[in-house]
Amino acid sequence: MELQTFETYLSVNERQIKDKMVVIIDTLRATSVITTALYNGAKEVIPVAEIEEAVNFVKNFGREGYLLGGERNTFKIDGFDLSNSPLEYTKEVVQGKTVILTTTNGTRALKKVSANDDVILGCLLNAGSIAEYIAQRNKDVAIVCSGTEGKFSIDDIVTAGVIFDKLNKYLDFDSDDLTKASYQLYKPFSNDITKIIELGTHYKNLKKQGFDKDLEFCLSIDKYNIIPRYKDGVVRVIADF
Amino acid sequence: MELQTFETYLSVNERQIKDKMVVIIDTLRATSVITTALYNGAKEVIPVAEIEEAVNFVKNFGREGYLLGGERNTFKIDGFDLSNSPLEYTKEVVQGKTVILTTTNGTRALKKVSANDDVILGCLLNAGSIAEYIAQRNKDVAIVCSGTEGKFSIDDIVTAGVIFDKLNKYLDFDSDDLTKASYQLYKPFSNDITKIIELGTHYKNLKKQGFDKDLEFCLSIDKYNIIPRYKDGVVRVIADF
Repeated sequence: MELQTFETYLSVNERQIKDKMVVIIDTLRATSVITTALYNGAKEVIPVAEIEEAVNFVKNFGREGYLLGGERNTFKIDGFDLSNSPLEYTKEVVQGKTVILTTTNGTRALKKVSANDDVILGCLLNAGSIAEYIAQRNKDVAIVCSGTEGKFSIDDIVTAGVIFDKLNKYLDFDSDDLTKASYQLYKPFSNDITKIIELGTHYKNLKKQGFDKDLEFCLSIDKYNIIPRYKDGVVRVIADF
Repeated sequence: MELQTFETYLSVNERQIKDKMVVIIDTLRATSVITTALYNGAKEVIPVAEIEEAVNFVKNFGREGYLLGGERNTFKIDGFDLSNSPLEYTKEVVQGKTVILTTTNGTRALKKVSANDDVILGCLLNAGSIAEYIAQRNKDVAIVCSGTEGKFSIDDIVTAGVIFDKLNKYLDFDSDDLTKASYQLYKPFSNDITKIIELGTHYKNLKKQGFDKDLEFCLSIDKYNIIPRYKDGVVRVIADF
């Protein structure tokens, strides 16, 4: 079994991930938002790359049963119901709803791997479950970080390191240099991952804009025990996990 | 002043490095070989991407004064004078000579940034001098790792971390996430960088093939105090440093 990590979806080509299970990570904040929404009972999340796609979607299907969520430049989009803060995706708000979500990095990463039929979504909130699921499946894995504006992002790489650490409890496998580096980067901070993630540009930008509570929330490890799966353009919880 | 690090030359586009000083790193082994050859008195090193180019070069200019060096799959190329082992580039062998060098990753990284007119070559052997030179120039810097087979390579990233650590003594600057990660990766191993670099695929492969002495040599920090500069297709020592 082999485990590879990619710093961003831009460095992935289809050949490299063919026949592998793909784990998409966008800890700040898309995969944290999606995991939270699904845990709190959203029926499904439909990630779309452009604002216009989201707007057209509700034009065609109406607003009943749908919520528009997402961000541009970290802020809520005009006319949308929800921003990209996981704290807004409460049970009261999302239960039974379909969320149409557009974000800068995470939804683009999902689109990039959409030809693959075995794609799951990871973040710190469900890192332990992701590791457990990988161990159950016993298949080659590509961890694809969304990155920030096309570049290596410490928050995503540290999340890969956390998953790798948890996975080590289950089984041995070959891993590439970036997977090993993600673990080495995380290990000295295993008692307080904020100390490493706060060095990153993405954390700093969100902090500067006052998203302190979002940051604290997204940096909680193992809050949820679900696996979101992306298939045919829709993210739903894997029922039999 | 800004410092950016790229995991491989494949993730660089010209816009990102325009007007910046570029530091190309290929610790195992191309930039270590070039630095050693120049320190030992080679007149210049001409990196070429393909074996055929090297062979045509000496067909046109004759063998006198020229040495053919490099590797494919880590081993010496048939008919070449030297392999990609820095230990072969002694004073006795290289003094006054032009070395035509072809390697898998390093020479390709140099070709990728050849439009930039401010490119220097770094490795662990000259990490301190690289840091000193960057500090003198006070210009935005792009550290471009060669990587291994198009992927993140721990040896190159740790070298970037060593340079960043040394540079911290001179001045403050903004750095991107991968630069910070390279330093965090290196820091716990600052007393013995072999312990982190030996986790990498590239180190393991060279070790398996018996290149123990090359590895030990390339992992020496600050053995040489020169700055090789790549300009108009040729690498020469910067004389006034």
